[in-house]
Amino acid sequence: MSNISRRTFNRKLTQGMAGSALLAGMPWACGMGEEAQERKLGIALVGLGSYSAGQLAPGLVNAKHCYLAGIVTGTPAKEKQWMEEYDIPKDNVYNYENFDKIANNDAIDIVYVVLPNSMHAEFCIRAAKAGKHVICEKPMAVSVLECDAIIEACNAAGVKLSVGYRMQSDPYTNEIKRLVREKTFGDVHYVSSDAAYISRGNPDQWRLNYALSGGGALMNMGVYSIQSNIYGTGTNPISVSAQEFSTIPEYFKDTDESITAQMQFPNGVVGHMFTSHNANANRLFVNFRRGWAELNPCHSYGPLAGRTSEGKEIKYPHQSQQMVQMDDFAKHIKTGSTNFAPGEMGKRDMIIVEAIYQSIKEGGKTVPLDLGNMGIVKS
Amino acid sequence: MSNISRRTFNRKLTQGMAGSALLAGMPWACGMGEEAQERKLGIALVGLGSYSAGQLAPGLVNAKHCYLAGIVTGTPAKEKQWMEEYDIPKDNVYNYENFDKIANNDAIDIVYVVLPNSMHAEFCIRAAKAGKHVICEKPMAVSVLECDAIIEACNAAGVKLSVGYRMQSDPYTNEIKRLVREKTFGDVHYVSSDAAYISRGNPDQWRLNYALSGGGALMNMGVYSIQSNIYGTGTNPISVSAQEFSTIPEYFKDTDESITAQMQFPNGVVGHMFTSHNANANRLFVNFRRGWAELNPCHSYGPLAGRTSEGKEIKYPHQSQQMVQMDDFAKHIKTGSTNFAPGEMGKRDMIIVEAIYQSIKEGGKTVPLDLGNMGIVKS
Repeated sequence: MSNISRRTFNRKLTQGMAGSALLAGMPWACGMGEEAQERKLGIALVGLGSYSAGQLAPGLVNAKHCYLAGIVTGTPAKEKQWMEEYDIPKDNVYNYENFDKIANNDAIDIVYVVLPNSMHAEFCIRAAKAGKHVICEKPMAVSVLECDAIIEACNAAGVKLSVGYRMQSDPYTNEIKRLVREKTFGDVHYVSSDAAYISRGNPDQWRLNYALSGGGALMNMGVYSIQSNIYGTGTNPISVSAQEFSTIPEYFKDTDESITAQMQFPNGVVGHMFTSHNANANRLFVNFRRGWAELNPCHSYGPLAGRTSEGKEIKYPHQSQQMVQMDDFAKHIKTGSTNFAPGEMGKRDMIIVEAIYQSIKEGGKTVPLDLGNMGIVKS
Repeated sequence: MSNISRRTFNRKLTQGMAGSALLAGMPWACGMGEEAQERKLGIALVGLGSYSAGQLAPGLVNAKHCYLAGIVTGTPAKEKQWMEEYDIPKDNVYNYENFDKIANNDAIDIVYVVLPNSMHAEFCIRAAKAGKHVICEKPMAVSVLECDAIIEACNAAGVKLSVGYRMQSDPYTNEIKRLVREKTFGDVHYVSSDAAYISRGNPDQWRLNYALSGGGALMNMGVYSIQSNIYGTGTNPISVSAQEFSTIPEYFKDTDESITAQMQFPNGVVGHMFTSHNANANRLFVNFRRGWAELNPCHSYGPLAGRTSEGKEIKYPHQSQQMVQMDDFAKHIKTGSTNFAPGEMGKRDMIIVEAIYQSIKEGGKTVPLDLGNMGIVKS
């Protein structure tokens, strides 16, 4: 069975099926649990850039709890291509103008907003108003105010909201969380996290355009470093200081090229992060009282790799992180299981992002944070 | 041959020999080059604390170009013990009062000052005035002014000066230097270095006493992080900012517990360092344009370990770092070979240390540095 025909088959089957009689007779359905035999939720991707095309849509092909049901794009040429590739009916194709009509489309349960950062708030709010559950790609927005507006819109509409934090469902990340939670090596003392890649391609990319991105490296990979500092300690920071480094301002005209930041945590843990659009580093190091754990790479699409001071390799079978993330959110909607990346988490990270930019503006001054347990998810 | 008897044999042999006739007939001398057959230089250790007892004296046992010839101690009880253990004649034993008489002792070529930091300057200067070559343990002193005074005293006396930077002679360090110098993976973009250990033993140790140490973690392991940032980039920083973290001030009463610092380098490289007396981390990560190299552990007594992004292990036979360091300095004295850790290097690092403390005092402000190539050694 080719990929395309299998997608078609899956979609038709899961959309139309009333029970499990048919599935039970299919050889490839053997071993599927009860959950998988429930209806798959339909996801519409808003914005068909490289992340949707290269990660989300392929990730959905093998998802158990959701599937690619629709698309929303401002590029008409992409419509036909995607409809063919993923067997999407014309009725489930929207553009940015007629997007609100998605409210009337029962095939769409979840809207995943994958647009440039400055457009997240508008489309997440429109999706919520259309009665759809929302996944908002990270960073959640370009300001804390916008995060609040998204959260309020979802609450008002009674829909679920998640941020596109693929790492929060990842088994490597979860192993780090477990080591922290269970104090396997004692208390955490120090966390260091790097999330950087060399982004020197198209100078017209939206990430380099402040009006669209709201910031550079920090708004892109930086939020992963913030996240891994937090799950690497199990707590929110109580203060942050930061520095910006600019070496080719002619290329990084109005977005940050490289940023370092230091976080203090309530239990005395020191956290460090580095993010850059002009260096490669993708690591998490957690130092415990009696040992350490390390992931490298840590925030890439995988396969990830890790090890501990005991010489033990941290290793899991590689799966699409995006598939697992979207399946986790679909399960949350269907069963009330944990939402691993709720809106409050995205808002908290944006508070830290704003504090980092404030510290840089104030010459590296330490900025206090009063986050309580905002966005801390017990897993 | 037991350790002690072999030490005795070595000492007597090398002290007394005029040529290589005897050596040539000894089975364990086979394969020794011409250099090794020259006279070994006599080293006197000043200060017989744990570093002298645990690292330097044992390291000297198998050194090829120098040997433990004398001791200087303020603790009479140690005299007998060391004389027996290392076969040191009474004539080569001094205390802090009669130390200057070492000028008349031809058995002592080099004085290695291993005292608390605040005593380095006094004893290095006295050693220079006594006409002895000097190794000053790191950090070189407790101020740049003191570094200047040591350098001037050595220049005036016409003696050689080196700082106890064991890493500068280490093959792992040199492999990093080679990768940087030869641009094996392209230009360096980012360096991150941690040098920290949990130092929670005796609260009366001199390292916790500001008057003796001149500072805490930064003055102890921190200078290694400064060093590895510099050899990890091949250049001196042009600015530095820093933050201090204090979680148990009742223990770390007047010395820094944890410090993070960020360095900017002239070619746009970003450097980060973390040092602590209350966390364990001992790593160097160098990110190049097309790959990375990592040492972990990086600044410990070894065995060290390292790897590159190509999956290649960095691995060398383990040797006493201190032995290699002191042999390199003895060779420098005897043959004019490179001094891998000259006084200028120690002074440069103290300039950076003072800038780090200044930045902390000024709330994290970036402090400019004008170091040129000070202390950069081509190897």
